[in-house]
Amino acid sequence: MSVTLAFDEQELLPAVAQDVDSGDVLMLAYVDREALEATRETGFAHYYSRSRDELWKKGATSGNLQRVAEIRVDCDGDAVLYRVSQEGGACHTGFDTCFHRTLDGEVVGEKLFDPDTVYD
Amino acid sequence: MSVTLAFDEQELLPAVAQDVDSGDVLMLAYVDREALEATRETGFAHYYSRSRDELWKKGATSGNLQRVAEIRVDCDGDAVLYRVSQEGGACHTGFDTCFHRTLDGEVVGEKLFDPDTVYD
Repeated sequence: MSVTLAFDEQELLPAVAQDVDSGDVLMLAYVDREALEATRETGFAHYYSRSRDELWKKGATSGNLQRVAEIRVDCDGDAVLYRVSQEGGACHTGFDTCFHRTLDGEVVGEKLFDPDTVYD
Repeated sequence: MSVTLAFDEQELLPAVAQDVDSGDVLMLAYVDREALEATRETGFAHYYSRSRDELWKKGATSGNLQRVAEIRVDCDGDAVLYRVSQEGGACHTGFDTCFHRTLDGEVVGEKLFDPDTVYD
């Protein structure tokens, strides 16, 4: 990697996933160096799961994989942007994007699948 | 606010700014409750500056304000999305977006202004 990354004290960076076709912002998660390297090597979005404390291949359970077209880094090197082709919905709740609600609680996203049939 | 927010232990949330017209992801910064409320009240994007430890109205110095069309919250309530109309370039380096480089260092953004003429 020729860009210097500024991982935080937990060795993480926030990673935004954006649909490369629609431009929709799909989700925000975190990556460590291992997740970033797995993403580069496989072409599929990997993150670091803070709740499970492990490498997380997005869609490994649900099938809703993210094929990564491009990885961008911000000016300070402390955030990354995955530009992806999203299989199915990005959100574990079944919506197209995790950002499917306004701050006032209005639902603005589209429900694409029933999470009960996808996760057990 | 009718959506429950999950501020972290520093009372912050990551906030992604997206251009509402182009769909471009412009920047990632952080908000505290004060910044979020200032954004709602004024209609202009405010953040919390971690380096200066203060409320930060984006563009107060540069004039590159962000007029906020919509604030979205993610499924877990631990990230927000500002959908904005960006005045000038979003990045303090003069680029349209802070995410103007790939991980390999290729410049993919567009330089819109000379930061030396904007910041003193």
